[in-house]
Amino acid sequence: MSAPRLSQIVGGLPATIPFLGPEAIERQIGGALTVRLGANESLFSPSPRAVSALREAAFQSSFYGDPEGWELRVALAANHDARPENLVLGCGIDELLGLVCQAYLDPGETVVMSTGGYPTFAYHVNGHGGRFATTPYRDFQNDAMALVDLACREKAKILYLANPDNPTGSVLEPGLIAGMIAALPQNCLFLLDEAYAEFLEPAQLPEVALDDPRVIRFRTFSKAHGMAGLRLGYLFGAPETVRPLDRIRNQFGVGRLTQIAALESLRDRDHIAAVVAAVAEGRAHYTRLADAAGCVALPSATNFVAFDLGTAARANALLKSLIENYRVFIRKPTFAPIDRLVRITIGPPEARAILADALLPAVAAL
Amino acid sequence: MSAPRLSQIVGGLPATIPFLGPEAIERQIGGALTVRLGANESLFSPSPRAVSALREAAFQSSFYGDPEGWELRVALAANHDARPENLVLGCGIDELLGLVCQAYLDPGETVVMSTGGYPTFAYHVNGHGGRFATTPYRDFQNDAMALVDLACREKAKILYLANPDNPTGSVLEPGLIAGMIAALPQNCLFLLDEAYAEFLEPAQLPEVALDDPRVIRFRTFSKAHGMAGLRLGYLFGAPETVRPLDRIRNQFGVGRLTQIAALESLRDRDHIAAVVAAVAEGRAHYTRLADAAGCVALPSATNFVAFDLGTAARANALLKSLIENYRVFIRKPTFAPIDRLVRITIGPPEARAILADALLPAVAAL
Repeated sequence: MSAPRLSQIVGGLPATIPFLGPEAIERQIGGALTVRLGANESLFSPSPRAVSALREAAFQSSFYGDPEGWELRVALAANHDARPENLVLGCGIDELLGLVCQAYLDPGETVVMSTGGYPTFAYHVNGHGGRFATTPYRDFQNDAMALVDLACREKAKILYLANPDNPTGSVLEPGLIAGMIAALPQNCLFLLDEAYAEFLEPAQLPEVALDDPRVIRFRTFSKAHGMAGLRLGYLFGAPETVRPLDRIRNQFGVGRLTQIAALESLRDRDHIAAVVAAVAEGRAHYTRLADAAGCVALPSATNFVAFDLGTAARANALLKSLIENYRVFIRKPTFAPIDRLVRITIGPPEARAILADALLPAVAAL
Repeated sequence: MSAPRLSQIVGGLPATIPFLGPEAIERQIGGALTVRLGANESLFSPSPRAVSALREAAFQSSFYGDPEGWELRVALAANHDARPENLVLGCGIDELLGLVCQAYLDPGETVVMSTGGYPTFAYHVNGHGGRFATTPYRDFQNDAMALVDLACREKAKILYLANPDNPTGSVLEPGLIAGMIAALPQNCLFLLDEAYAEFLEPAQLPEVALDDPRVIRFRTFSKAHGMAGLRLGYLFGAPETVRPLDRIRNQFGVGRLTQIAALESLRDRDHIAAVVAAVAEGRAHYTRLADAAGCVALPSATNFVAFDLGTAARANALLKSLIENYRVFIRKPTFAPIDRLVRITIGPPEARAILADALLPAVAAL
């Protein structure tokens, strides 16, 4: 009895995963982490209104959620001057990225992104047999025109951009993104991952025509909304581009309580505004902290800050020290030239105090 | 500006979905349903211990769940005399079925199942370019040896069996399933969907060697555990067969609160036993109800009962009448010869009373 053969694509994949979870790190180091600053989860809690709704609805968890997520899509559409037909819900942006790969990538087709860009997107591209062409970050930013030039040269099927960017925290001018869209090659889908959009001023976001069938934008409830553990993301674009996902998506995938809590979180604009303000305060603190530690905090448009340690060796050593000596969970990119960065989530003052107590001696000891 | 081209497989799919949700039906009929008896959700509520855990942990929803679901896999493995390495978690069996198709099916490979078997499995097979060979239900049961004969003739890559079966509610003798496994063709994966396993006596379930790399079994928290709205299913089998799914699965897909609630539900054996007993009582009631209505309740090993209306026309008319005239949500299969059935979830006495008040006049009026 031998195991049935894997598909050609999956059989050729390495046994790697995009991110190790903090719980796996705890099992490795044999103890609890002091603070989780590695996954850009919100340390400012979900909306209290969302939490109340969740508690009240707990007994409803025996029922499936609406597979069309209609009420939630109506509410979200209003925020984007869109119609529900423009939106698709999923279990976080991660699931939706995989779904778009399944819908649009034939094996061997080319995907363009920055070298070392979002590893989970790359993981799903690999899972569907895509081929990569990448261009390095420049000055810790996505190199907008190099990306679109590469997409043209390679006749790319998909061009991926995270804006604001993960893992650098940088943001591109709206005009630059409009320029990328104008220069897209024929038959190329532009995936605009805006997981951190809530941390921007509205004017910092590009305007994209909702009837442009070449662009899909992604948002999540895992960051500013503080609902990472409830699994909700959505994408929006032209119906002709996004509705075919209904042919393959996990129809009942978005949970009932998740939909209920998300609706309340959307209504709690004050909470989101307070989180965004608190994150801005923390960002300023991280800049001072980096100065004190003798490293550089890159400008950030997100709920995390990339600290430049000057070399990959120093950045790797800092990551190791923070986890092993101080039990502070952070992450870092692994590809040059951004591998000299470490990426640290912005928490509230108590979490930042724990970080400061670890970061200053840890950098000093490098 | 034209839309980018869909992948060859998805571009060829029809715009159909496996199941319309009850909320969509409510939007169509312009009013609330009286009772949901169509999706085999538990009307007996989740474990009160699970609900308490969910409420207590509500503020933790800002954190991702453990992507390895380690604690939960340890607990589940103990129930199956297995190791965590044998298990993979997902957002319900539905997501896992799609994942297995992605991992094991190359386009054009053949999948064998009963004609009219679980539509969501068929949907995922289509989404990955599989080809079907089906064999009809016989006496409202999966025709075990016809299925495995067909798999041999067609050199099938996947053989799918739901046991207990959905939508008939029937169950096969463990010896028959052992016979199917013994007769599997080379390189064929046997998917054993046991979503309703908790409603059986343990001795009714087949024994499958955990080191047999050809069999994957599926379980869910959506039925007896009453957690459909929290999205959790799992599969188990030989590590060499199931671990490759780690190369493609949505790593952070299973929510944090879901994992917490599921652990509590697993510990609440009394609740599950009470649900199973209450379902058995309801099953007996449905048999009497069918007698009174002048139709036949098929034997059921699940939390639903298939009522035989004699002809597809009568079954279709009953479905329409129950929804439109009585606002009672049920479902029915669409393929012959099981299209003369309607499928009705077993609820508690209050729900059954609502059903009785609708079913008796609705059948009489056919």
